Amino acid sequence: MRDIKELDLVLFGGTGDLVMRKLLPALYHLQKDGLLPGGARIVAVARETLDTPAYLETATRNCEQYLGQDFDAAEWARFCERVDYLAIDALEPASYASLAQRLGEASARERVYYLSTSPSLFSATCRNLAGAGLIHARSRVVLEKPLGHDLASSRQINDEVGRYFGEDQIYRIDHYLGKEPVQNLLALRFGNALFEPLWRREWVRDVQITVAEQLGVESRGDFYDKAGAMRDMVQNHLLQLLCIVAMEPPASIAADAVRDEKLKILRALRPITGPAVSTRTVRGQYRAGASGGQPVPGYLQEAGIPPDSHTETFVAIKAELDTWRWAGVPFYLRTGKRMQEKVAEIVINFRAVPHSIFGAPADTAHTNRMVIQMQPDETVQLHLFAKQPGDVIQLRPVHLNLDFAETFRTRRLEAYERLLMDVMRGNLTLFVRRDEQEAAWSWVEPIMDAWQDGGEAPKPYTAGTWGPAAASALLGRDGFNWHEEL
Amino acid sequence: MRDIKELDLVLFGGTGDLVMRKLLPALYHLQKDGLLPGGARIVAVARETLDTPAYLETATRNCEQYLGQDFDAAEWARFCERVDYLAIDALEPASYASLAQRLGEASARERVYYLSTSPSLFSATCRNLAGAGLIHARSRVVLEKPLGHDLASSRQINDEVGRYFGEDQIYRIDHYLGKEPVQNLLALRFGNALFEPLWRREWVRDVQITVAEQLGVESRGDFYDKAGAMRDMVQNHLLQLLCIVAMEPPASIAADAVRDEKLKILRALRPITGPAVSTRTVRGQYRAGASGGQPVPGYLQEAGIPPDSHTETFVAIKAELDTWRWAGVPFYLRTGKRMQEKVAEIVINFRAVPHSIFGAPADTAHTNRMVIQMQPDETVQLHLFAKQPGDVIQLRPVHLNLDFAETFRTRRLEAYERLLMDVMRGNLTLFVRRDEQEAAWSWVEPIMDAWQDGGEAPKPYTAGTWGPAAASALLGRDGFNWHEEL
Repeated sequence: MRDIKELDLVLFGGTGDLVMRKLLPALYHLQKDGLLPGGARIVAVARETLDTPAYLETATRNCEQYLGQDFDAAEWARFCERVDYLAIDALEPASYASLAQRLGEASARERVYYLSTSPSLFSATCRNLAGAGLIHARSRVVLEKPLGHDLASSRQINDEVGRYFGEDQIYRIDHYLGKEPVQNLLALRFGNALFEPLWRREWVRDVQITVAEQLGVESRGDFYDKAGAMRDMVQNHLLQLLCIVAMEPPASIAADAVRDEKLKILRALRPITGPAVSTRTVRGQYRAGASGGQPVPGYLQEAGIPPDSHTETFVAIKAELDTWRWAGVPFYLRTGKRMQEKVAEIVINFRAVPHSIFGAPADTAHTNRMVIQMQPDETVQLHLFAKQPGDVIQLRPVHLNLDFAETFRTRRLEAYERLLMDVMRGNLTLFVRRDEQEAAWSWVEPIMDAWQDGGEAPKPYTAGTWGPAAASALLGRDGFNWHEEL
Repeated sequence: MRDIKELDLVLFGGTGDLVMRKLLPALYHLQKDGLLPGGARIVAVARETLDTPAYLETATRNCEQYLGQDFDAAEWARFCERVDYLAIDALEPASYASLAQRLGEASARERVYYLSTSPSLFSATCRNLAGAGLIHARSRVVLEKPLGHDLASSRQINDEVGRYFGEDQIYRIDHYLGKEPVQNLLALRFGNALFEPLWRREWVRDVQITVAEQLGVESRGDFYDKAGAMRDMVQNHLLQLLCIVAMEPPASIAADAVRDEKLKILRALRPITGPAVSTRTVRGQYRAGASGGQPVPGYLQEAGIPPDSHTETFVAIKAELDTWRWAGVPFYLRTGKRMQEKVAEIVINFRAVPHSIFGAPADTAHTNRMVIQMQPDETVQLHLFAKQPGDVIQLRPVHLNLDFAETFRTRRLEAYERLLMDVMRGNLTLFVRRDEQEAAWSWVEPIMDAWQDGGEAPKPYTAGTWGPAAASALLGRDGFNWHEEL
């Protein structure tokens, strides 16, 4: 990893939601914690004609709101000294001259171009940066999702960006990989001799990966209806989490060592085609219901959604890995909007003890379990059975906290803070490589094609529930339950 | 297990230390917690001519001291109503008539004879109880250590007691087995699917069992010099703890299921004979030193010790088990008087990770470890490595509490309370069967014989230390350290 002192961070989409809500607050926090290089400059770029003071006025108002109690006016004022705003039309080559002028001599400083824009602009932006002589060996580009709409469009974007940036300069961000519990999972699995022997088909019964949102499509209806849950969540976040759980121990945490192992997992996903699509996948679409005690409309009544849309707002999949380690172990993936709770978690259900010497357990659901929760709380818990104090041996479930946040008593970094640090340091380990991304598309595309060819509507579910009954039946047929149904 | 309402508990050695310091306080606690059967009567028996009021006066004074804050005068007064004292000469058949009279009709009530006397009285006591018609099918006898001086004398006692009581009526007590952490270890090992797969040579590097006392021989010099640490501690407590750690999963926690497995371990102990005695065992004897900041005399200066005594006050042994599960895993046993700290613990050291993907660990001593501590605190801890919160993956050791005393918030039973409950219920699981006891003698006897035949003096160690340097070297030759030396 590099030690960076001089760095320019160029945020395309500088007036957008992600920059305002996530990136500026993250950079502010890094500065406050002394992690942002002293000489780092931030250039926010967007089409709107604004000067820097006007931009900072908006930014200040927004960040004050998102940072809440963490907002410190003096610290923020120092932060603002690093920030410039430039009005640039990403599609217009001539407009990059002002950026070139602002950045100055190319070779002197590290450069990060963070493309927080529509992917339709990625190609032109890179081309124009190159045309203006703004890409050099120490330049990096960060790409936000969605990285294409399918395998073909993803390849196209990768080809185009790849004309101007080498693969080792490209940071495809998946912010779930930046979350503390995911990193903790890596540390626990590979920093201890205790878990790895158990991390296989002999001892693991099933794995459940859930990313459930309570929100509906909000103002993003138009965008969302072209994507759906499979493209928006499964192809990237859920499959990346699956890789982290399932990968073989890499030789090191160097980027390609880890990404090679993740790729092997993506390529070992058993294809779901033909009749398996209807038995191993469930797609759903929410109907009117209630969320947080308030009535909410159904998906088809949301703004920007065609009344006959078949876009899925919920997906559940029984995935299987054709490897020695995981053969026969189901990996249940599930994501949806308008679910009962906001939950993002990985649940490793271990097999039950082969024989209970203390008499039959009260409930077959009582097995050991590791729960890596990313939302609502960031925790890693191990569910065990211990002896109840007293004069006879009686077992009682206990939950062990394995994330030790309280033990260490330091502020926890947000996913974007950690990932921005990695971009600045040039650490690609937690970013998605092109071949991973394309392998993920190769696996989800036939499922989406089969759904479309089948012509059936997604299964309806009431907003504020855990999705269609078919999602429970998917596990029920194997004799299992989703974690919240235990 | 039986549900007992009517029960007579006869405590031989009723004026002795164990009854005063452990048994009466334990019975009082059980009554206070509502665990003592309402109809239970206690008959304290000893040679001293006393009446019940005089006995209770002494008992009250003693128990007030040992119970401390737990002493409740009203509760104690109710407890005293259960207690009678009888002056009986255990060797004198005629004197049992008063006991027979006090106990009344044989068949109506359960009877427990607790022999807290010298083992030289066991045989006569049982014979005289039988002669007075005081043993029936629902009578049990509890035998305190020492159960003999060697295999032959142990057999003799067992033969004699066995003439009057069936093996399933004989409760050989080993109070270490009654300790909460030992029971917790059983619950953790066999109540969870997570530990058992790791509990074997592939994942365990070594096991250390330490019972270290800070005290010297105190007023027991005369007795102790005939015994020594091997007879007093290793033959019983340390080997029993080793059995609990090493045994295969029993089919149930029924007494003989567990005791069969323990017996298999005792019989699988590789004999230590010939030159192995000097390379795999260390015996020591303390010299003058300091304990708790005060100067203390050496063993040979203690009251009742011959100045040329070769009796060992310290033993360390590298034991090995010839089984598929444990072949090649050293079990280091260690016990001593006048050690640096009062510690009783079992340490399971797991092997290091086969390869560190995060870079070399700071210290090869940094491995996963389970520590089952019985003294000074009763805890079970798992030592793991977790990610230190922050922007890079750095491991830090963390200690997980697996005994959950705080989670459950109930008073913890003392070992004697639990074991008395088991005696009253007729649960033999935590009591030592004759064949176990004899197998333990068969293993330690050749070592003691070799020591004696060698004619060498025990290795001296300074009071208030961890024993002779040779005990560290015993592990050092294998590349390991005792837990406190890490």
